[in-house]
Formats: sequence, structure tokens, C-alpha cells
Amino acid sequence: MKIENPNPIQWRFAERAEQLQSSFIREILKITQRPEIISFAGGLPSPATFPVEEMKTAFDKVLSNNGKVALQYGPTDGYLPLRQWIADSLSGNGSTILPEQVLMTSGSQQALDLLGKVLIDEGSRVLVETPSYLGALQAFSVYRPEFVSVDTDDEGLVPSSIDPVADGARLLYALPNFQNPTGRSLSVARRVELVETCARHGLPLIEDDPYGALSYSGEPYPKMINMNPDGVIYMGSFSKVLTPGIRLGYVVAPMPLVRRLELAKQAADLHTSQLTQMVVHEVIKDGFLERHIPSIRSLYGNQCQAMLSALEEHFPAGVTWTKPEGGMFIWVTLPKHIDAMKLLDEAIANKVAFVPGAPFYANTPDTHTLRLSFVTVPPERIREGIAILGKLIAAKM
Amino acid sequence: MKIENPNPIQWRFAERAEQLQSSFIREILKITQRPEIISFAGGLPSPATFPVEEMKTAFDKVLSNNGKVALQYGPTDGYLPLRQWIADSLSGNGSTILPEQVLMTSGSQQALDLLGKVLIDEGSRVLVETPSYLGALQAFSVYRPEFVSVDTDDEGLVPSSIDPVADGARLLYALPNFQNPTGRSLSVARRVELVETCARHGLPLIEDDPYGALSYSGEPYPKMINMNPDGVIYMGSFSKVLTPGIRLGYVVAPMPLVRRLELAKQAADLHTSQLTQMVVHEVIKDGFLERHIPSIRSLYGNQCQAMLSALEEHFPAGVTWTKPEGGMFIWVTLPKHIDAMKLLDEAIANKVAFVPGAPFYANTPDTHTLRLSFVTVPPERIREGIAILGKLIAAKM
Repeated sequence: MKIENPNPIQWRFAERAEQLQSSFIREILKITQRPEIISFAGGLPSPATFPVEEMKTAFDKVLSNNGKVALQYGPTDGYLPLRQWIADSLSGNGSTILPEQVLMTSGSQQALDLLGKVLIDEGSRVLVETPSYLGALQAFSVYRPEFVSVDTDDEGLVPSSIDPVADGARLLYALPNFQNPTGRSLSVARRVELVETCARHGLPLIEDDPYGALSYSGEPYPKMINMNPDGVIYMGSFSKVLTPGIRLGYVVAPMPLVRRLELAKQAADLHTSQLTQMVVHEVIKDGFLERHIPSIRSLYGNQCQAMLSALEEHFPAGVTWTKPEGGMFIWVTLPKHIDAMKLLDEAIANKVAFVPGAPFYANTPDTHTLRLSFVTVPPERIREGIAILGKLIAAKM
Repeated sequence: MKIENPNPIQWRFAERAEQLQSSFIREILKITQRPEIISFAGGLPSPATFPVEEMKTAFDKVLSNNGKVALQYGPTDGYLPLRQWIADSLSGNGSTILPEQVLMTSGSQQALDLLGKVLIDEGSRVLVETPSYLGALQAFSVYRPEFVSVDTDDEGLVPSSIDPVADGARLLYALPNFQNPTGRSLSVARRVELVETCARHGLPLIEDDPYGALSYSGEPYPKMINMNPDGVIYMGSFSKVLTPGIRLGYVVAPMPLVRRLELAKQAADLHTSQLTQMVVHEVIKDGFLERHIPSIRSLYGNQCQAMLSALEEHFPAGVTWTKPEGGMFIWVTLPKHIDAMKLLDEAIANKVAFVPGAPFYANTPDTHTLRLSFVTVPPERIREGIAILGKLIAAKM
């Protein structure tokens, strides 16, 4: 029944499809998954922290008690008891978040895509940190904005640098807690100043918070959404506190925006798995995360400490790095003449991997930066890998 | 810590966000979910067909044997053994489909969104059937195409009507088997003619096939992808043969396109749940669907027959309807002077619901059409509801 000699298709793609690039990190990961490589390149949480037994019990319970509902189509905005749980956990400091403001998404990456879809026209000004989260740059790029890189320093984003570029911009995207890629956090004073600055300009502020719960001390930073619930869009995820493979995140937004996001989600994938939402609610509803998260903090905190000590010991003078108080990443700044991309080739030849910093910049990259993740590597391998990297860098000083 | 008197945000949305409309069907469903209403409005599969026990066993097995992998981030293109299963099941008639051509998606709705994202610029010509699947119109609308409605008759889409509009068009979207909303199927001769016509114009043909397995006789129609694997994009789903709530679909495309779709998916939500993909593979890998699908066919076939008999008995002369050989829907054409939207108001007052046909038209709607679903209503309620509708229509003749 095959037809004879069909004309080949001359594919014509949408202009936005020309913006699509594979994440450089995902490309590196393909190379560095070989077991002999000590990889600091990953952005994956440690599977040692996944509550497999709790998930198994919850799947069994939800399917046994409520299988027909869990397996049927569900509402676009999500499973209400879970949205209520999220709203309750975010309310505080005199600000009340309503479940109607919560839209469940297929990982927080989808929230980025929906925000781009609903807020960004071609050429719209979009403000991002320098450097910024690569997944956000990728998601927004599809909608062809003009990215403006906002200044940062050791306290994170510099709010005053927004003033000249805020008016007419569509959004400011910030990752204030233990940022990916730098591991830096926005200081409390800066948070207030940032929220005030955005409010003065009427500029929507996106607070992306996948790592907020992973403070090693257990002390959380205040959330900006509580400082101005009508002007801040909050993004959360179960990927780093529970498990990423189930793809469950959420976005919390002021009502006019969340309704548009919901319509965009309906057109994009109808809704996120009911079963997954019911299972996650079953796992967390009675305080599981309060018992579980301290073990993740402790694991990551110890490995971060091991890496910081190793850096101190093995990296030559003239190299600097951040000292994270939580999360999964350390950001290294080399002397300007060392190109991290070239260093990566040598490192892989010596069986160590990391992610060069360049892809994290929306505009002109600092090519002498790199990102290290410590969460999936045991301390002795961390020391071994950092020693190798230190030698390679020292040879270039 | 709440800031004082922030300026309210004057939300400025992207132009494409103005295209976003809630599915009229989802709005109707909210009204018609009350148990006293006999609803033919649903597009949901019958939960009686969901294999809850098999899913439960598979979740337990996958989490027990492979929990850490299932719960970790996974590849964007999907779980390879499942993609291989899909490729094998689609290969035939001398055409080989490779797993590399298969991209797993979060329901087939996401495949529609990704296809729109990668193929449609503002003003691109997009050819659709008259009427067409509402979810596709919604997904594509976001990218602001110019829809061209292609003629259809009792044998489905009329291939010759494409000739004047094909050159320069970006795609033709067709749902050839037991179409939503009409229940009609494209005849075999028309399939060959359609594939040849599209190939002659170098026009990508999307073959959306959620219902293909639900042929009441068990006899499947030939797939157009097998007639020209380099020119046809095939979309499939586990929603109608297994369960929709898990959101698992797929798109099979020629290599140049599938790589773009994969990049678009990476930016949109990274990947679809590994756990869900592994569980579905576990359920279906040893022939479960061959045993399971006949029971769905038999249930839907009986209820379709009950509705066809009731229509024959209760609907007045001058009203016509389709006689589906599979799937979930019957399409009714009223005399031109009867507006189905107004009829719906009366029907709901009399505790019966359906979906008016107008939203399924990309351009000028036939307002005297309506869609009936029989899959979630038992035969005696079908007869009761059709009798009520018949009386309301007869009063208008």
C-alpha cells in the first residue's frame, strides 16, 4: 500500500524553531555518564534521597481507594487538595495565598514555558540575572524576547540596576535561593529592595524556588511572594525535595495571570497526571517532608563542605568560588585567560567533568567560569576529582 | 515583611495569549457533571475500562525493581523500550518505523502543541477537516495560523479539495479513524489518494489516531504513515486504550522534524514521567492490549448500537446522523433552522446534555450540528436521553 516515489518534503519550520538548541548540559551529560568519570556536571538530585518505599505505598493506596478517578482525565488547574496544601504552605507573614492561585504543571520547566507563552512577544524585554538558570533561558528563548542581563554580586541580583531597564519590560526572572548555577542567595535586604523596585515599576517578578527548602542550616529565606502577592509569581517543584522523574511542579500567580496560564496549559497538555498529583499529596499530607528534607540537607551539606575543603586545598590562588548555604551548586571563577570550555576537554581526558559557565549567560558570557555539582558524588571522589581539576588549572596559571 | 501600597500591575500579555480560549466542551462539562443529567457531552473514555489492578501491579513492580531510575530525571525523547514497542507496532506493509522517530509526549495534546510550536508561524496556512478536533484547533490557534477548512463528505476528507490550497501550507491535520467529533472514517481509497496528494505538494500530513484501535469489528484501517513514512506524522495515545489520567501519548515523525520536536519538548517540560512510561511498558509488553482492547470495543460498540437504535426510534424525519464503525462519537445534523446552541439550553433544562457542533469548525460553523458521546452512559439511560432530545427537536420541526 506504500505509495511510489513520493516527493521528499522540504521542511519549513517556524521562525521560533530556529531558536531551539539542545541544552549544552544535557549534551555534556551524555558524555559524562560513563562510570569512570567523576562528574560534577550533573544537575540531578541524588537518587539516594528518593523515598521509593513511600511512593510505592502511596501508589498502591491511591489506586486501591480511588483508582478510577486517579486514572481519568482531571481538571486543568490540578488536584484541589494538593493545590490547597501548596497554598497553605506558602501563606504567611500576613499574606494569604489561595488555592485558586495555584496551577499544577509538568515540572517547573513547564511553568517557565507557559509564562513565556503568555507574557513574551517577539522583542519583549525580559530581565534575567547574570548568570541565570539555563532552563529558563531556553524556555523563554522560544518566544524570542530581548534578554537584558541584570547585574549581580555576592549578595545576588542588584536591585538598583533594574531601574534603567524596567519600564516596558514584561518580566524579571530571579532564582533567589541557592541559585542554579552560582549557589548564591539574595540577601534579605535585597529581597525587600527588589520587590519594592519591581512594584514601583509595575514589573512582574518571577521567584523561581526549586532549592529553597535545601538550606543546610534549615533556616529558610523569606519568600518574595509574601512581600507582594499581587506582583510576584512564585514557582515551586517537587523535583528536589521528593523526586524529579514524576515531573511535578507548580506556579502561583495573581488571578489575572493564573487564568491565562491555565488556558495556555489546557492547550499545551490538558492537565498534569491526576494519579501523580494524588500520590504526591498522599505522601506529603501528614508532614513527611518535614521529616524527609533534613536528610537531604545533611547529605548535600556534607558533600558541599567536602568540596569546599577540597577547593581550598587543591585550587591555586587566583581562583575564587562561591560558598553556598544550601542547594546543589558551587560556581568557580578562574583567571580571565583560562577558557572553561577548553579546560573541560582536558578534564574529560583526565576523567573529570563539570559544566562551563558560558551557557548560563543570556548575553555576553564570562568564559572563565564553571559550575560544579557535588550532590551525586561521594566525598572521597569529590576530593579526588577536585585535586585533578586543581592540577589542570595550576598548569595554566 | 509585606511591602506597603505596591503599584498594581497593569498586566500586559503576549499577543498569542489573546487567542487563548477555554474549551467550550470543558465549560459544558462543568455544568453537566451533576448526576441527574444524562450527559452525552463527555469526551471521556469509560472508567469501567481502566485496568486498575494491572496498573497497580506494574507500579509496584517498577518501583520495587527499578525505583531509583524510574524516579530520576530521564531522557527527553522517552523510555527506549517503550519507543521500540511503539515503533515495532507501527512498522508494517514494507515500511519500517525506527524508535528514533518516536517522541513520547504528555498526552497527545502535547504533540499538537509541539507541532504547532515547530511548524506554525503567524499567518501560516494550516489545513484542517470540516469539522475538526477542537483540541487541535486550540493547540494550533496559539501560534496564530490561517486555518483553511478542507471539504469532507461521508467518506471523510475530500483529497481533491486540497489541491488549490496546499502549496505553501505548513501542514494538513487529519483524524482519519472514527473522528472526533463526527465518528466518520476516511475510506481506504481516500487514504491512498490523500497521501499521494500531500506527497505531490510536499505537504506534511498529520495522522492523529487516538481511536484507531477502537474499531467495533476489530478490523483496523490501514495507517497512512505506512504509505509514506517520510511525509506523514503519526500521533498516538494510551488515553483511549489504557487510561487518560496518566497523560501519555507520542508522535512519530520523519527524522528532521522529530529532532526539532524533541528540542521543543526539552524547553517545554524536559521529559515525560519516566515512571509512567516504564509502568505502561510493563503493562503492555506481553500482549495485554490484545486481550484488553476487545472489551472496550464491545462496550462502546453495544452502546453505540443502543444510541443508533434510539435515534432511529425517537428522532424525527429531517434529522440525519453518522453511523460510526468505531470510536466514541455520533454526529447529528439538524434541519438548518435549528440552532444547536439554543437546543442545548432546553436540553439541560430537561436534564440532557450534548456538545453543539459550532466549536469544531475552524471557520464558518454549521450551527445546526451536534456531537453525542455514548461511552459513559448505560443503554437504558441512552434511550431515555435520546427520547427527550427527540421530543425537543420534533417540537421545532
